Amino acid sequence: MFRPEIKVIDCTVRDGGLMNKWMFDEEFVRKVYLANAAAGIDYMEIGYLSSESAFSRQEFGPWKFCAESDLKRIIGDEEKKVKLSVMADIGRIDYADIPHRSESSIDMVRVACYVHQVDSAIALAHHCMDKGFETTINLMAVSTVGMRDLNEALEDLAKSRVPIIYLVDSYGAFYSEDIDTLAAKYMERLPGKTIGIHTHNNQQLAFANTITAIINGINYLDASLYGIGRGAGNCPLELLLSFLKNPKFNVRPLIQVIEEQVFPWREKIDWGYFIPYMVTGVLNEHPRSAMAHMESDRKNSVVEYYDKLNGEQAHV
Amino acid sequence: MFRPEIKVIDCTVRDGGLMNKWMFDEEFVRKVYLANAAAGIDYMEIGYLSSESAFSRQEFGPWKFCAESDLKRIIGDEEKKVKLSVMADIGRIDYADIPHRSESSIDMVRVACYVHQVDSAIALAHHCMDKGFETTINLMAVSTVGMRDLNEALEDLAKSRVPIIYLVDSYGAFYSEDIDTLAAKYMERLPGKTIGIHTHNNQQLAFANTITAIINGINYLDASLYGIGRGAGNCPLELLLSFLKNPKFNVRPLIQVIEEQVFPWREKIDWGYFIPYMVTGVLNEHPRSAMAHMESDRKNSVVEYYDKLNGEQAHV
Repeated sequence: MFRPEIKVIDCTVRDGGLMNKWMFDEEFVRKVYLANAAAGIDYMEIGYLSSESAFSRQEFGPWKFCAESDLKRIIGDEEKKVKLSVMADIGRIDYADIPHRSESSIDMVRVACYVHQVDSAIALAHHCMDKGFETTINLMAVSTVGMRDLNEALEDLAKSRVPIIYLVDSYGAFYSEDIDTLAAKYMERLPGKTIGIHTHNNQQLAFANTITAIINGINYLDASLYGIGRGAGNCPLELLLSFLKNPKFNVRPLIQVIEEQVFPWREKIDWGYFIPYMVTGVLNEHPRSAMAHMESDRKNSVVEYYDKLNGEQAHV
Repeated sequence: MFRPEIKVIDCTVRDGGLMNKWMFDEEFVRKVYLANAAAGIDYMEIGYLSSESAFSRQEFGPWKFCAESDLKRIIGDEEKKVKLSVMADIGRIDYADIPHRSESSIDMVRVACYVHQVDSAIALAHHCMDKGFETTINLMAVSTVGMRDLNEALEDLAKSRVPIIYLVDSYGAFYSEDIDTLAAKYMERLPGKTIGIHTHNNQQLAFANTITAIINGINYLDASLYGIGRGAGNCPLELLLSFLKNPKFNVRPLIQVIEEQVFPWREKIDWGYFIPYMVTGVLNEHPRSAMAHMESDRKNSVVEYYDKLNGEQAHV
């Protein structure tokens, strides 16, 4: 599948950091950066842009903040080899803490929001655009949003100056038919905009749904090394690149950094296909209770978890 | 997705046995049988039907042979609660060793063959039908078969009396577009026959491709508990049942047997998404070299394996 408009965004550090409070050491981030550059990845999302007034550096690692000094150490003395992206959450970043692009190593700011935050997200995104950044809005958890609310949000986004809007399957709840339907809706209601896709792997459909998105004309594709990310994780970057078969991409550097840097994290954190994540995906729920279960000493007691979640749903 | 013609076949013991020489103990097989019955699964494929002249009982567990005495112990004294299926490989079973259905606990014999064995497969399948069994032919590794050979095989199968023909992605090499294309071809060239699907998960597409097959009218669906099966394994049964949402199915007994019986096997054998299996899937190769790599003491040296396989392909 070769389409020059396609851009691949590696979310390893940003989404993977949701599993370890962004405690990746500098070597990890530097090696991922170099692997992305060698593989021909378009953007590396290196973390969140957050104000230090919102989070403590004692509790969270450097990639929760993405200070310029930290970014500079990752890039080193050479010319920057891959564009850097950061994610910004509504209310977690003061406008005054957002640098101008000319003073920053960041190229793109992606604003994540829930449907009721769309107006705030547009304001923040416009602010970032005015400071020179490429910008996207990533509308999260749309699997739980009613048709009327979604249409209204898309109408607001269509009127904005933000050029790239993401379809996000936060809970890993979508089947390919859902992606077909929503991609068509986003295309129709957001004329002239580029659409992106961010998937989660609760039902082992992250890669498949990304392919479905590509077939539907979606051009910004999120993925991560070995699928590392919150809960069940994301679309595996090495699978996506193998599928795209664009000569500009090279899978080998990804395999190398997976072996050297990602495998050791498998011993410390559990992302990927596990029954608790599967259960929240099927039930279209936030994975937070599954993550808590996986971090408890009863992580293999999956029937207990299944009964708890299904009981809760039955009594809503 | 509710369609009464859909039948689900659990391949846990048969395909999972490819990873442990069918050394599952009786408790495992009995618990899987009871879980399948409680979950509303249509068929349980309990192993291979092989002649003892072809394989040694010293080397292989009971589910490589499926002797009637072993099947009876699994079923116990109660009425049989789920239909039993066995797989037969060409040349590994003497016709004389195949019982008559009236003397057997087996309901269905599935004949697995490569494209050059289609005539032998049809003969064996007809023999099984004449002995009273439900019968399928599972045409393996079609991702490596040329168009002309495939058309010829389908022509032979169309003329046969065998009512059910399987599309098999032995190497986990297919994308959903391949399934679309092949499902349409099988439907067109096998008028009046029922089509089945058997997938492998090398590229995390086993479940997605099974859904694509369903959308294309394929009605016999193979899956296994937690995806256990050769190499990357199969479509996970718990995901498939959650998707089908047919009121006759019940996911909870599957979660329970996964916790009690399947989790312990995760400590002993490596099925699922691993880089070596991903590499053979992408390259459309048999997983045997990946399985050998995973069983070696260098299983995490995935760059070495990647280079070896890609080097071999480059020099063909």
